[in-house]
Amino acid sequence: MRIAVLGTGMVGRTLAAGLHGIGNEVVIGTRDPSATLSREGTDGFGTWAAAHPDVAVATFAEATDGADLVVNALNGEVSAAVIGGAGIAAGTVLLDVSNPLDSASGFPPNLFVSNTDSLAERLQRAFPDLRVVKGLHTMTAHLMTGPQALAGGDFSTFICGDDPAAKQLVTGILTQLGHTDVIDLGDLAGARGTEATMLLWLRLYQVLGTADFTFKVVR
Amino acid sequence: MRIAVLGTGMVGRTLAAGLHGIGNEVVIGTRDPSATLSREGTDGFGTWAAAHPDVAVATFAEATDGADLVVNALNGEVSAAVIGGAGIAAGTVLLDVSNPLDSASGFPPNLFVSNTDSLAERLQRAFPDLRVVKGLHTMTAHLMTGPQALAGGDFSTFICGDDPAAKQLVTGILTQLGHTDVIDLGDLAGARGTEATMLLWLRLYQVLGTADFTFKVVR
Repeated sequence: MRIAVLGTGMVGRTLAAGLHGIGNEVVIGTRDPSATLSREGTDGFGTWAAAHPDVAVATFAEATDGADLVVNALNGEVSAAVIGGAGIAAGTVLLDVSNPLDSASGFPPNLFVSNTDSLAERLQRAFPDLRVVKGLHTMTAHLMTGPQALAGGDFSTFICGDDPAAKQLVTGILTQLGHTDVIDLGDLAGARGTEATMLLWLRLYQVLGTADFTFKVVR
Repeated sequence: MRIAVLGTGMVGRTLAAGLHGIGNEVVIGTRDPSATLSREGTDGFGTWAAAHPDVAVATFAEATDGADLVVNALNGEVSAAVIGGAGIAAGTVLLDVSNPLDSASGFPPNLFVSNTDSLAERLQRAFPDLRVVKGLHTMTAHLMTGPQALAGGDFSTFICGDDPAAKQLVTGILTQLGHTDVIDLGDLAGARGTEATMLLWLRLYQVLGTADFTFKVVR
């Protein structure tokens, strides 16, 4: 499968490497590839890209051209603008892993959409030709692609979306990555619930002093 | 300890019986005790009260008079009005187990306060002389008092509040009830996170077809 990952931060990098690791052709999309690749230093994208030569880097439009799956690993606040600018083909599955964090609200951040709406639903309304699936955003990056690293993967991973076939495609990928308890929350309005867990996640991050945790639905 | 439970619904009844069961003197508060006790039938409060003669029933004001702990098991929408009318003594610990469900929004309900504020914080601001602790509201009633009934109690129970001694009192009770993973989320703003999990809880209730589940923070 050809997968485009939008976003060059920790989440985008981790997902790109992980999705390549299970046999996909992965391209990371960024606004200006040469500028992005010129960022050196320990955390610089250029340094990371040099260590991951099998992951291509291209513009947002080039990366998404011909992709079977586009992963939104962008900051929630810029997601709609970037996705709109990428010109993604109608029918493409968009896995939205972003969170609607309001960067103007300090730490811990509030959500810029919540309760009666969600970022995932906003994206679906803005791009009705895409098939949006929300998922993976309730855990830190390395658990998205390596769930076995925490309690042997004994936790829950939520997905929701309006298109059953799109959810099936995403579920297949999650299973390949090692997620053993994928819970389908139904239509995309389920994202109101999972996005709102960020408010609890951020508190737990503060009191536990680590990002190495996530939620299990005990039942 | 003398405990007043406000509310005669399933949550109030279950908490009253459970808190009596671990050795407390429990009084259920209601607007009009004789009217409440006259409700017969399978689910009627009178039927329940006859089966639980050790739990007293009194007006809100009588029930809270002299109480070491008041438990708010009321509907979120009426909580502030009832607590205000009960005339609870300054310094009393109020364990708020209610949820800010907006009954006008259909099913699943939205929250009438969320994200940048919480019902628990509203109650604390309205009654600054009380010591509000939020807790137990992320699970169905019988798990509040009998956590061992689900996965041997292997799940998380959240508390938060601005008064450390009040949280210590509540934690002691939760431990007596069998809660083994009580996570202190810090000050009362932590309730924004736990109250928002209702949005996820209600979705899970729909797709799992049972209320017998809750969350574990896997770490």
